[in-house]
Amino acid sequence: MLNFESDYLEGAHEKILQRMLETNEEKLSGYGRDQYSASAVEKICQACLCPEADVYFIAGGTMTNALVIASLLKKIEGVIAPETGHITTHETGAIEFSGHKVLSLPQTNGKISAQQIREYLEQFWADDNREFMVFPGMVYLSHPTEYGTLYSKEELKNISEVCHEYKIPLFLDGARLGYGLASPESDLTLPLIAEYCDVFYIGGTKVGAFLGEAIVFTKNNLPEYFVAHMKQQGALLAKGRLLGLQFDTLFTDQLYFEISEHAIAMATKLKNGLAEKNYRFYLDSPTNQQFIILENNKMEELKKDVAFSFWEQYDDEHTVIRFATSWATKEADIDALLTLL
Amino acid sequence: MLNFESDYLEGAHEKILQRMLETNEEKLSGYGRDQYSASAVEKICQACLCPEADVYFIAGGTMTNALVIASLLKKIEGVIAPETGHITTHETGAIEFSGHKVLSLPQTNGKISAQQIREYLEQFWADDNREFMVFPGMVYLSHPTEYGTLYSKEELKNISEVCHEYKIPLFLDGARLGYGLASPESDLTLPLIAEYCDVFYIGGTKVGAFLGEAIVFTKNNLPEYFVAHMKQQGALLAKGRLLGLQFDTLFTDQLYFEISEHAIAMATKLKNGLAEKNYRFYLDSPTNQQFIILENNKMEELKKDVAFSFWEQYDDEHTVIRFATSWATKEADIDALLTLL
Amino acid sequence: MLNFESDYLEGAHEKILQRMLETNEEKLSGYGRDQYSASAVEKICQACLCPEADVYFIAGGTMTNALVIASLLKKIEGVIAPETGHITTHETGAIEFSGHKVLSLPQTNGKISAQQIREYLEQFWADDNREFMVFPGMVYLSHPTEYGTLYSKEELKNISEVCHEYKIPLFLDGARLGYGLASPESDLTLPLIAEYCDVFYIGGTKVGAFLGEAIVFTKNNLPEYFVAHMKQQGALLAKGRLLGLQFDTLFTDQLYFEISEHAIAMATKLKNGLAEKNYRFYLDSPTNQQFIILENNKMEELKKDVAFSFWEQYDDEHTVIRFATSWATKEADIDALLTLL
Amino acid sequence: MLNFESDYLEGAHEKILQRMLETNEEKLSGYGRDQYSASAVEKICQACLCPEADVYFIAGGTMTNALVIASLLKKIEGVIAPETGHITTHETGAIEFSGHKVLSLPQTNGKISAQQIREYLEQFWADDNREFMVFPGMVYLSHPTEYGTLYSKEELKNISEVCHEYKIPLFLDGARLGYGLASPESDLTLPLIAEYCDVFYIGGTKVGAFLGEAIVFTKNNLPEYFVAHMKQQGALLAKGRLLGLQFDTLFTDQLYFEISEHAIAMATKLKNGLAEKNYRFYLDSPTNQQFIILENNKMEELKKDVAFSFWEQYDDEHTVIRFATSWATKEADIDALLTLL
Repeated sequence: MLNFESDYLEGAHEKILQRMLETNEEKLSGYGRDQYSASAVEKICQACLCPEADVYFIAGGTMTNALVIASLLKKIEGVIAPETGHITTHETGAIEFSGHKVLSLPQTNGKISAQQIREYLEQFWADDNREFMVFPGMVYLSHPTEYGTLYSKEELKNISEVCHEYKIPLFLDGARLGYGLASPESDLTLPLIAEYCDVFYIGGTKVGAFLGEAIVFTKNNLPEYFVAHMKQQGALLAKGRLLGLQFDTLFTDQLYFEISEHAIAMATKLKNGLAEKNYRFYLDSPTNQQFIILENNKMEELKKDVAFSFWEQYDDEHTVIRFATSWATKEADIDALLTLL
Repeated sequence: MLNFESDYLEGAHEKILQRMLETNEEKLSGYGRDQYSASAVEKICQACLCPEADVYFIAGGTMTNALVIASLLKKIEGVIAPETGHITTHETGAIEFSGHKVLSLPQTNGKISAQQIREYLEQFWADDNREFMVFPGMVYLSHPTEYGTLYSKEELKNISEVCHEYKIPLFLDGARLGYGLASPESDLTLPLIAEYCDVFYIGGTKVGAFLGEAIVFTKNNLPEYFVAHMKQQGALLAKGRLLGLQFDTLFTDQLYFEISEHAIAMATKLKNGLAEKNYRFYLDSPTNQQFIILENNKMEELKKDVAFSFWEQYDDEHTVIRFATSWATKEADIDALLTLL
Repeated sequence: MLNFESDYLEGAHEKILQRMLETNEEKLSGYGRDQYSASAVEKICQACLCPEADVYFIAGGTMTNALVIASLLKKIEGVIAPETGHITTHETGAIEFSGHKVLSLPQTNGKISAQQIREYLEQFWADDNREFMVFPGMVYLSHPTEYGTLYSKEELKNISEVCHEYKIPLFLDGARLGYGLASPESDLTLPLIAEYCDVFYIGGTKVGAFLGEAIVFTKNNLPEYFVAHMKQQGALLAKGRLLGLQFDTLFTDQLYFEISEHAIAMATKLKNGLAEKNYRFYLDSPTNQQFIILENNKMEELKKDVAFSFWEQYDDEHTVIRFATSWATKEADIDALLTLL
Repeated sequence: MLNFESDYLEGAHEKILQRMLETNEEKLSGYGRDQYSASAVEKICQACLCPEADVYFIAGGTMTNALVIASLLKKIEGVIAPETGHITTHETGAIEFSGHKVLSLPQTNGKISAQQIREYLEQFWADDNREFMVFPGMVYLSHPTEYGTLYSKEELKNISEVCHEYKIPLFLDGARLGYGLASPESDLTLPLIAEYCDVFYIGGTKVGAFLGEAIVFTKNNLPEYFVAHMKQQGALLAKGRLLGLQFDTLFTDQLYFEISEHAIAMATKLKNGLAEKNYRFYLDSPTNQQFIILENNKMEELKKDVAFSFWEQYDDEHTVIRFATSWATKEADIDALLTLL
């Protein structure tokens, strides 16, 4: 049975396992105060060309989003996000659980534009009754988006400028950041993301790690006593070494980028194969998630041999499905899938 | 440098690492729907002699406490806990973050009694103005407590009876449960704990795992859509396999109990050695945490060779310090420590 | 200067003031346990033809919305509401403050339909990943809506049926309920609203009272220990007599309905006058709020003599403004306004 | 039947009612933007000798406490309060509902001392693990306390100094402030309270008004967009005039102080009478609440003719009861009570 259901099917990259073995018996300080976490922080700062960044490691993406947003927002503030953003739709209201509203904007291919954000902010600040509304206190983007699409350098720069004009932070959810950076269609780099964003995270769970996301605060804007916020939200692991060691490994010898490129190479091969066979794409994704529109009976047929994601009902007779590649995808599996299709 | 600072200094038990290696390339379903999680659930049910239990795996203890409490309490309810309970003092208000009050009771050696709980509940329900007070909706205990002490079978049974008389659940925080069960002074077993408690957790982070706590709901009392609660609080890991596999290993061939016994053996050796040398104990702990009262200058001396925990100022000239053993403690280190002392 | 800015410009109906004077020196129990509150409850039950209803009085509308929603929803649930609903837009995130998401649906003239709600609920319950989404736990409507429009009997009945099919309560925000019931275009009555809704409130602040909204739970569905919820959210007034006495007065001799009819008569006169003068209506409102589209220079001119509400920018050269009548509007002021226009 | 059950038995002072009548038909701006609110603010600033104070009016005490605390604290902060403080015990967890912990300290006669607060703060800031604890972000006192006792000028000054040394605000709950200021044993004045406290409120509900508390921020420390916080917590009344007008009346010609003095004169007469008859006082209260210890059968006897508050069980045979006087207490009723006793 082939499996392209998600990008978190396997364990971790073998180099990570190897280092876990090597360091297992070392007695290390807890709560991220160990030397591997320190080393990982330093390497990430270097990779971002942002030596003064504050970097913290969290177990998963929803927790990371909730933590960053709750620790940065004031009580009367909410976060602007695309209506298809992960925090808007698929985190069971984790942001609202912490008391904040997600201010959702209409999306195009999973993205929102600087223009939309500017209009929202302009309108808010021009409204005499704004104290009756939730204050927009942050902008949230996913990159790549939930649809696998990418912001261009120009787009992100413009959004960043609007945010800074209105003095609110730009937060980028990089659960699949590696796959975005490795895409040939991307003109963004890690240092550029660090430059444009006030805070973002580098996803590990979907890119080679067992678990872990690295939050990067880039503008000397770490919330005061951030560790207390982590503890309060249950986000502080006793054995922080587990996260630090993984990121230390991923950011040694470009491993994070190298394995991301592999996922993109696999996705590109799949995409080209699908195009050759005249499959109909739901949208044009330049990253590791590929969405096609299948006839329902064809989809049922395919289910027998391949695991994939149901995405949404397209119409009565068609369905959008998703294939995801990852750092662990084997080329033989892509070949097998293309043969089947 | 010797290190007895905590029971989470090392990585994980070697058998866990071995199984992570063996299963690393398997493609498994996410969010705890994998076969290893299922197997771990089954083994835990068996170990608890509670076939109908609902078992879920969470990354850490504070998150577990917050999740169990928030998912079981109604908005107007709070949780009764000892004034020294972990949720009362050392989780940065994680319970309050979710909207609930910790109703703290005076403690003796880290424990509260059935009698205290009964009086609190009687008084509450007898008060005509009780709607102006937080409703007591649960009782929280740690076992072993934060001071290493244990509830006896009789004590826990009595507390359980009071809770059930007042129709509120009894929740036991078992971050160090293995060390409690392995203590020669314990007359409690895992099945007895499952019988007396409505929900409890079996600590992994401090007992052999990299991370992970297993929540056990014992009375067909799982909150509806519990996975949604997990997601909402950021407690649902994509690669749930990591937690399932660890608990599956710990509950194979009694490993959890065996490694717990080792920690207790090491603690007993240390305790006996300290007694022989006439050290003054802060209290009599039958588990893996040993507390002694040291003269401040003696403590400063010791710091040069041994890492330990500062516990509290005893008086102007003395300090309470803690030594913790664990599943990973080496006998040679105990010997070395006793030689030093 | 004429003033049509809102429906809460004056104090209270003279009969209310008179009874406040008469009863001022009586020593009465606090927290709504007084005889006037009891009498008001009884009269409201009668007016609703719902003898078993539970009725509570709250100082204001936002508090009422937050209280009803927070006391009825479970933590993982949110409330379905029109995107223009008061809770969605103009209560500074009071619902999110209590931890719940507003699940907004597109509106038409301020309303949503049974069909929209059904589709949302169907889609939610058909989604295998629904535990990653906020559970729809209630439907919120305003009647009249924020645009002065009304649900028909048929529309409300249909929405009620969908809610009950999916076992979620229907909550109707009646901040201006009197003005809805008094509209000649309404085919809904108070007993019908009590029949279709699980909980609703009868607005006093905008309809003759100094302050106060009467929440009516119609289906033996009062949240347990509701007074505790009120206290927890700061909604329990010490001198509950103040609210009880006002509603007792409003529901004596049909006063509430009579003064509502006056407001509608004044609005109808204004509407007819505007139509005669060929003013352009933004939408067709059958209640006490009338919205017209004015040229910006004309609007500026009008501002010199009349206070009204800015509603929204229509286009670069036009603005939507609102005139509101109320129980206290004087016919001479309508005449004067029509002369001016 | 005599009634000394509480200090909120009657409506409002007649001068308030008179002004409500006089101004009832005036069309005024909503949400506290009316001229009477502005005038009340000015008069309160003058009475406090604090021209730059920010003053806001709220309907009730629990709401006021929740609003002040939630708008001033950061998420990781809690509020230090006596274990008998109103927020600690009798507000159904309103503070926790907003996400914050009440850090309770042992009390003496309802009070805590500067020394206790200092020790708590010192210990917190000296603790290396303080990020695992709730940060003390404010001190809350009631004056008079829930036991009718008073802080002296010296005591309040000392507490103020500790707070300012540690840069946290001092918040004084003045639900019965008038009765404290009017006590012959008080050496505090309104200007001194404004000087020592960062924020406090002047209680209206228990001192002559129908409802209303005036929050005074004294140090240019109003939380940004405070009206948005009010709206978010449901604390913003549409007809703010109702609160403004009452405080404008209370702070005209010293009415607030004059009626407070009457309540204290009545309480003093009662206290002296009780002492003459050798009743046993539970504690020595210099304000409008008097607590005595009665034999249970004597108490039952008294209940037939007098309404009073049950305070707490003293021992198996005795009970503590409370008599409260107020601005509205009639001297004849005190005489009648003393005759009965």
